[in-house]
Formats: sequence, structure tokens, C-alpha cells
Amino acid sequence: MTDITIIGSGNMARAIGTRAVAAGREVQILDRTPENAAKLATELGGNTTSGSLGDIPDGDIVVLALYFGPAKEVATHYGDTLSDKTVIEISNPINMETFDSLVVEPGTSAAEEIAALLPGARVVKAFNTTFAGPLAAGTTGGMPLDVFIASDSEKARNEVAAFASAAGLRPLQVGGLRHARELEGFQLLIMALQANPAYENFNWGTGLKVID
Amino acid sequence: MTDITIIGSGNMARAIGTRAVAAGREVQILDRTPENAAKLATELGGNTTSGSLGDIPDGDIVVLALYFGPAKEVATHYGDTLSDKTVIEISNPINMETFDSLVVEPGTSAAEEIAALLPGARVVKAFNTTFAGPLAAGTTGGMPLDVFIASDSEKARNEVAAFASAAGLRPLQVGGLRHARELEGFQLLIMALQANPAYENFNWGTGLKVID
Repeated sequence: MTDITIIGSGNMARAIGTRAVAAGREVQILDRTPENAAKLATELGGNTTSGSLGDIPDGDIVVLALYFGPAKEVATHYGDTLSDKTVIEISNPINMETFDSLVVEPGTSAAEEIAALLPGARVVKAFNTTFAGPLAAGTTGGMPLDVFIASDSEKARNEVAAFASAAGLRPLQVGGLRHARELEGFQLLIMALQANPAYENFNWGTGLKVID
Repeated sequence: MTDITIIGSGNMARAIGTRAVAAGREVQILDRTPENAAKLATELGGNTTSGSLGDIPDGDIVVLALYFGPAKEVATHYGDTLSDKTVIEISNPINMETFDSLVVEPGTSAAEEIAALLPGARVVKAFNTTFAGPLAAGTTGGMPLDVFIASDSEKARNEVAAFASAAGLRPLQVGGLRHARELEGFQLLIMALQANPAYENFNWGTGLKVID
């Protein structure tokens, strides 16, 4: 039985898949290019399977490990197929040319737009503040990486928190899905710092931590 | 000569004042209750002076170490007196009863509202993500605390960054003043986590870090 389906085969799919296999979860990788999914599944090892977007996502949790545009396409493609599943949406809807603004309007978020496309699913915002490098490692500065989790479904928040904990990460539940606005907004600033030559040590490898 | 005027005498005034004195800056504390300002000035030591809101802020940098409501009142009170000064605005405009929403509309921020009251000043958002405890110490988890800085004035950003560095903190410049929206929004989530009994270790003492 598949526990977690990851749609996508890029760096974030690899990082989340690495954590999922480390947590002992059964993983399915789906990608529009099934050869890429198969390659990542082999790399991840465990009992990871793979397929194309013509396949049904088997996992109880489905991760859209995609940029915002493709995530919307995939949400539209699967639609009611994802009903009653927990769907993790990770994207940062930022203007990648300027790194200075979001491409969603104030008062909404990528996660809420995806949720509108999947009314039967329990959509969760998570993993949008975790860059692939530290996420694959699970740690930053010798500490478990923080994973901020927002969803209108308490059940889904708890499910994703349990996954994060099992994967060696620290879950931080921040409330309803509308708080994806603040998670996406802040990550705009963190991404801009990576792209800013004044902070040359950052280089897309920083970890965001609430240190206690 | 006063380098930095701090308006307010609460925990954040104390913390910023502690860092300023540690950085060797001359500090003036002003408060609507001048006895409270005098008490804090004595506590801070150095050559710290004090006064009331009837006094003119002498510092090149003026810190509004106040909640959002009082900060608006003080900005209105001083008005053009603060022209050509760098004014640091630290507030978090959150609903303190629910810890679940902001009291400013989407697409604006406390800092931008304060800036509208002070058209002649160079308004900087900073120190809104730093709780008083770690800020007074200057460190979190053995690392310099991060100070996120947003302003439309590059000169003012650099001035506040220089102060933060001299005070043993790490400045992170995130761009124009409108990015106060993302700084205030994210801090809503961080404050809600402090108030959430599920995270009992946090207790208003966490430090936010971009770990590289």
C-alpha cells in the first residue's frame, strides 16, 4: 500500500521523497514524464514505485511537488480523484524575474487557489519554507528543520505533522489554510535573500528555524 | 549628541536600548510617563538621557518602541518634527484576542500606515520579529539574532543595518517598506505559536533565524 504519492520529479520531490523513505513510508512518484519518475524512484530506493499522470495517485497523502503553475494544472487534471485525500501544496507564487512580489493577489494564496480546484480534498500548505538541500538532509545547523503547516482540516494538519516528525523534522502548526498567505509571503523575502549577492553564503541552502 | 532616541519604556524599549548601549550609542528614552523613561535610562546606564513626549527627539535614529495604536498616536504627535530622521517602526498589528488575524487590511502594513503619517521621515520596519528576551541578549541558540529590515530608503536601511551589526545582531535587508507586509504577516504566525499551549517551550522567547 502506498502511503505517500509525490507528483513531480524535481529537487523538492527528491527531498520530500528522501524524508518519506527515511520515515519508512511507501512512496509512489508520478510525473508527466514517467521516465523521470522512474529514475527518481530508483534513486530513492525503498519500495518506491513510479508512474505517469495517467495513473491514479495511490497515497493517502498526495504531495504536489511542483511550481504553482504546474500545481494548478495537475489539480485540475486530477480533480475529484483527489477527494478525501490529504493534498500537500508546497509552491511559492513569486515573480521569479524580480523576486520582489507575489503573483497572487493580497488576501489570497497559492494554497487557497489550489484548494478551490480540489473542493473534496483536505489541502495542506507545508514545505514551502524548506529548501531542497536542508530538507533532504532533514537538518539545518544541527537542528531538525522546521516545517510550517496550515490547513482548514485538523485531521490533515495532524497527519502531515506526524509525517514530518517521523521524517526527523519539527512540525509547527500555524492554523487554517488562509495562513498560507503569511507562509508564502515570508518565503518571498527568504528567496529574495538567496538571490541577493549581498548574502552570498545563503545560496538557496538556508534553513528557517524558530529557535527555542 | 544623542545617536538613538527610543520612544517607549516597555520590554522592547529596554531590549533595543540594551543593544544600543552595548553598541556604544548615546541613547535618549522618551515616554509619555517621564518617570518610566527616567527609570529605564538609569537601568540602561551609559550616558542615557530621558524625557517626556513634550521633548524633541534628539537622535538621528528614532525608534517607536510601541504597539501599533500608540505608535500611530506618537507619529501624529511628532509629525514633521521627525522629518529627515530615520524612524524605526517595530509593531505587529495583530488581533491580540484571537492571535489569528491582522488588524490592517491585506495589501498594506502597520509600517506603511505609520509612514503615511510621517511623509518627511525615512521609515524603516525592523525588530518586529525579535522578541524582547533574545533581543536584549543579542543571541538565540548561540547565534546572533537576525533583524529583518525593510525601507524605501536605502540610506536608512544601511543605517539600521550598521546599528544592528554594531549591536552584535545580524541585519537582513529585505527591500522596500511594502515588505513590512510579509514581516508582519509571518510574525502573526510566530506570535500565535507562542500563545499556543501545544508549543509550551516557546513562551515568547524564541528567536527567528535564517541558518546558513
